[in-house]
Amino acid sequence: MALNFVQSFLLLLLVFAFITAVASDPDITSDFITPAYFSSVINGTFFTFTGFRNLPDPINGTLMVTKASLVEFPALDGQSVSMAVLKFPPGGINPPHTHPRATELLFAVSGTLEVAFADTKNVLYTKQLQTGDMFVFPKGLVHYQYNRNHKNPAIAISAFGSANAGTVSVPNSVFGTGIDDEILAKAFKTDVATIQKIKSGIASP
Amino acid sequence: MALNFVQSFLLLLLVFAFITAVASDPDITSDFITPAYFSSVINGTFFTFTGFRNLPDPINGTLMVTKASLVEFPALDGQSVSMAVLKFPPGGINPPHTHPRATELLFAVSGTLEVAFADTKNVLYTKQLQTGDMFVFPKGLVHYQYNRNHKNPAIAISAFGSANAGTVSVPNSVFGTGIDDEILAKAFKTDVATIQKIKSGIASP
Amino acid sequence: MALNFVQSFLLLLLVFAFITAVASDPDITSDFITPAYFSSVINGTFFTFTGFRNLPDPINGTLMVTKASLVEFPALDGQSVSMAVLKFPPGGINPPHTHPRATELLFAVSGTLEVAFADTKNVLYTKQLQTGDMFVFPKGLVHYQYNRNHKNPAIAISAFGSANAGTVSVPNSVFGTGIDDEILAKAFKTDVATIQKIKSGIASP
Amino acid sequence: MALNFVQSFLLLLLVFAFITAVASDPDITSDFITPAYFSSVINGTFFTFTGFRNLPDPINGTLMVTKASLVEFPALDGQSVSMAVLKFPPGGINPPHTHPRATELLFAVSGTLEVAFADTKNVLYTKQLQTGDMFVFPKGLVHYQYNRNHKNPAIAISAFGSANAGTVSVPNSVFGTGIDDEILAKAFKTDVATIQKIKSGIASP
Amino acid sequence: MALNFVQSFLLLLLVFAFITAVASDPDITSDFITPAYFSSVINGTFFTFTGFRNLPDPINGTLMVTKASLVEFPALDGQSVSMAVLKFPPGGINPPHTHPRATELLFAVSGTLEVAFADTKNVLYTKQLQTGDMFVFPKGLVHYQYNRNHKNPAIAISAFGSANAGTVSVPNSVFGTGIDDEILAKAFKTDVATIQKIKSGIASP
Amino acid sequence: MALNFVQSFLLLLLVFAFITAVASDPDITSDFITPAYFSSVINGTFFTFTGFRNLPDPINGTLMVTKASLVEFPALDGQSVSMAVLKFPPGGINPPHTHPRATELLFAVSGTLEVAFADTKNVLYTKQLQTGDMFVFPKGLVHYQYNRNHKNPAIAISAFGSANAGTVSVPNSVFGTGIDDEILAKAFKTDVATIQKIKSGIASP
Repeated sequence: MALNFVQSFLLLLLVFAFITAVASDPDITSDFITPAYFSSVINGTFFTFTGFRNLPDPINGTLMVTKASLVEFPALDGQSVSMAVLKFPPGGINPPHTHPRATELLFAVSGTLEVAFADTKNVLYTKQLQTGDMFVFPKGLVHYQYNRNHKNPAIAISAFGSANAGTVSVPNSVFGTGIDDEILAKAFKTDVATIQKIKSGIASP
Repeated sequence: MALNFVQSFLLLLLVFAFITAVASDPDITSDFITPAYFSSVINGTFFTFTGFRNLPDPINGTLMVTKASLVEFPALDGQSVSMAVLKFPPGGINPPHTHPRATELLFAVSGTLEVAFADTKNVLYTKQLQTGDMFVFPKGLVHYQYNRNHKNPAIAISAFGSANAGTVSVPNSVFGTGIDDEILAKAFKTDVATIQKIKSGIASP
Repeated sequence: MALNFVQSFLLLLLVFAFITAVASDPDITSDFITPAYFSSVINGTFFTFTGFRNLPDPINGTLMVTKASLVEFPALDGQSVSMAVLKFPPGGINPPHTHPRATELLFAVSGTLEVAFADTKNVLYTKQLQTGDMFVFPKGLVHYQYNRNHKNPAIAISAFGSANAGTVSVPNSVFGTGIDDEILAKAFKTDVATIQKIKSGIASP
Repeated sequence: MALNFVQSFLLLLLVFAFITAVASDPDITSDFITPAYFSSVINGTFFTFTGFRNLPDPINGTLMVTKASLVEFPALDGQSVSMAVLKFPPGGINPPHTHPRATELLFAVSGTLEVAFADTKNVLYTKQLQTGDMFVFPKGLVHYQYNRNHKNPAIAISAFGSANAGTVSVPNSVFGTGIDDEILAKAFKTDVATIQKIKSGIASP
Repeated sequence: MALNFVQSFLLLLLVFAFITAVASDPDITSDFITPAYFSSVINGTFFTFTGFRNLPDPINGTLMVTKASLVEFPALDGQSVSMAVLKFPPGGINPPHTHPRATELLFAVSGTLEVAFADTKNVLYTKQLQTGDMFVFPKGLVHYQYNRNHKNPAIAISAFGSANAGTVSVPNSVFGTGIDDEILAKAFKTDVATIQKIKSGIASP
Repeated sequence: MALNFVQSFLLLLLVFAFITAVASDPDITSDFITPAYFSSVINGTFFTFTGFRNLPDPINGTLMVTKASLVEFPALDGQSVSMAVLKFPPGGINPPHTHPRATELLFAVSGTLEVAFADTKNVLYTKQLQTGDMFVFPKGLVHYQYNRNHKNPAIAISAFGSANAGTVSVPNSVFGTGIDDEILAKAFKTDVATIQKIKSGIASP
């Protein structure tokens, strides 16, 4: 069976999808990388991201994170940088998590935030950030941010030294991926009932 | 006050300690790196590590990990590789953890192991390893190994693509570093009593 | 002559200054890098930067740039990320420049900006940014930002994938460093009078 | 419509073009990279570049640059090195420019050259090179070379630590890409007439 | 001629083969890399390598090397680590060789081994390893391992900081690739007869 | 005993020597690196290398190699590039060798050269270079150059993508570092007499 044009195009798109996956953060040997599927002429619009124009507000007291990474903004491919905006409701928390591929530099642009990370020696570094303060969360270490103020929201803008820093949420990764209760009980040196209680609050995949 | 020789030496050791901290994993521009404090002639002994000759056995049913990383084996500086031996007692577990600076390639050399990691989309990849099987845990992702066999021990040898992969233990990093109960309760969407119960089983720093 | 403590300390500071100069952007083999001169205990304050609390406003219609890079914020050493805030007065410009060590990801948080960069094929990519838009300026390429609005100021927050991106200002680098008029006239295919006229507006080093 | 062989081949060439664009300068995981479109058997000819056999001489007093980079010599892909030969006519100049992706190591093999670069602090480093001298222009910094001798030509051979160093010509990038006269006048703190005078000597894209 | 489905698929496989060849060892911007030809759902099996279950024994007194590199275990793509098992017969040798893309960290798990490498200053570093000892062979340097014990075998497990370290065997690379006798005689400052005698023992390609 | 100034200075020089050894080839976070021992003001002379002004000619029919690497030209530190000039006498050879830290790009500027390298699959790639030809020797692979012309000399200029590529000479590294005759006889599948004959022509360390 001969491939028609549409089938060939889809197969090639598949190829491009995988090529994109191979792209790495180090220096590229061109000014920028044009996505393989990009048929129109590259102009200034390609290098522009408009997804931050109307940043959604937190719903139900839950932190709202909006990202501009390789996924949302393809022009970042090979450029080793990305950003995110975090909108904290009053009393809102960004639960313990890590970024496996980049350090996070957080800039508290509105409100106040309690921030902390633990290093590989299990030492906790914590700080109460005022509006205008920055904090650095080294690559791969567990950290959180908490808006302890229960009346006012807070906003932070974060920069990452990778086009795709990635996020490993501890609650979701550990208690929301279906790991056996028995294993988690052993790991956390507790009983299965306690594990099940924690799991009940975490969304399953 | 003039510095005496011992004081000068200690100050210089301090310098060297910081220099070592700066060393990075990428290619070096020499064959190898001699530690600054190294006064004797470099010979084959410098490149030899004997710390794996008599690997300690698990005590009290707890996994015994022995490492050959930059810390224990200075000749690894700049060489981008390290190893570890993991001895699992029957029913022993290596609780959920991440390595912030390297992928782990685990080789099950004795017994069987249940292994798993969760990716940044919270998909769990799990496998029952037979003796002789290998498994790859990508950099920075949460993973665990479990010897479900309650009669026989298991042994694994792990390789890392960094001289100092680092380990972030989820139980210790999250529940053993003194993070407020209130914050953890919010983060895990549970109550303070449950957090305190989990904390009670985890050693504090 | 024996070195006293102060002399020894100054000499060691000199050493540290040079060590810092050697630090490179790639992955480090530790969680973070403590500056060698740092004598107090490391805590959360070390990872906090307060220099953005009261960002200075533009003076005399000139762009005001405030940076949080390796120079101002030592905790960024080895973390491959930095930020800057740019305050544009009405009609203010950030003249053509390059960053030799990182791509810039600019986020227009207030007002509007006209932005552009030229690639190595001398193609100009330009865009009118609305409030909330982002634009990516690939590493090492000449770019500018211009607040064409002559009534309202504009503010941008930029992220860089290096702890020390560096800035090469074209006007200052080319016309403010003392390069011979004759050479510049040849290079720009014009006469010495024109070069001297341009030089007269640029501050000498 | 089924794709015929030629159409398929062209589509695949398109894929390869983009793959090539993604190739990065860091270490590769193979001995060398064979271009995807390469159908014949790889032999010594693939690793040979003959484009420097008869290097063209300068015309009309203009510098003649011949490159052996990723573009002209595909075997350099992934090998992190390239070269160029620069033939300067008497009184010839290589106008201020930067290489965004590599340091240049220039070897003056014939005649004499005046060379200089400005660092990010706007300090100019200049030198009169004799035949046989080398000079290093750090990555991304503005530099020029000038054959001040108006009777004799000069030849230089340059090495770069990237397969595709790229060149940003200041005159062309700033005055030859169509940036508004008003913006350039503001940026260079001069009037529109002066900008237009400079632009008149620079070729438009 | 229109391409049928099988032909298109083969062509695309060819593309993927080359893409794989481009993959580099540095950090990737995804958790892992799925091979482009992989049609089934990725699960734990993809991250498992079973090729070490029944490691072949040495035949005819010749060292038996089994590898788990990018070639045998595609999940290692982008993960910068690989392993190998070396089974030495009594008196067996691993002749002088280099790994062009990674340092080797060898762990003697059974028997004893004499090991050595020469650095770029032609200094030889040698050591008699006992069971349980490790030795580091820096990237690109000539090294060998020798089981001097003529009664007992020896086994080593090696880790590499690259998914594809590569091996350059000195005997095969120099005397088994067809280099002219005259050239080798000149290079080794000996006569053609001696070169031919050595060549007679080395398998030709 | 208090350290006097000279002793302190020597100790610090020792520190600097080791710091230099740690310097790695990846991107630096400064424009350039000033050696720690450098007391005078940095100017254009620091970036100039005059060691190629009068390149020595071959003596006794032996290849003469002159290098401009990190060792001879400290300004190359962190700049990832170096060069060498090779002067071949008539019939002169550059024996089989590898560069562990960089690909070599060789430019035959005078005479003709026979060049070759063997890849990790033991395939030999060979070529007769005319004056003006270039050839690429991928990182870490065994290669040689031979001036088969017995009347005329040949000159080549080589570029490397590392400030310190390093050289592993096969004859010297294998037969000139004191490896046991027995081991080499086994490795090259020949007798001890043949090994001793080859060794007799190679200079010992």
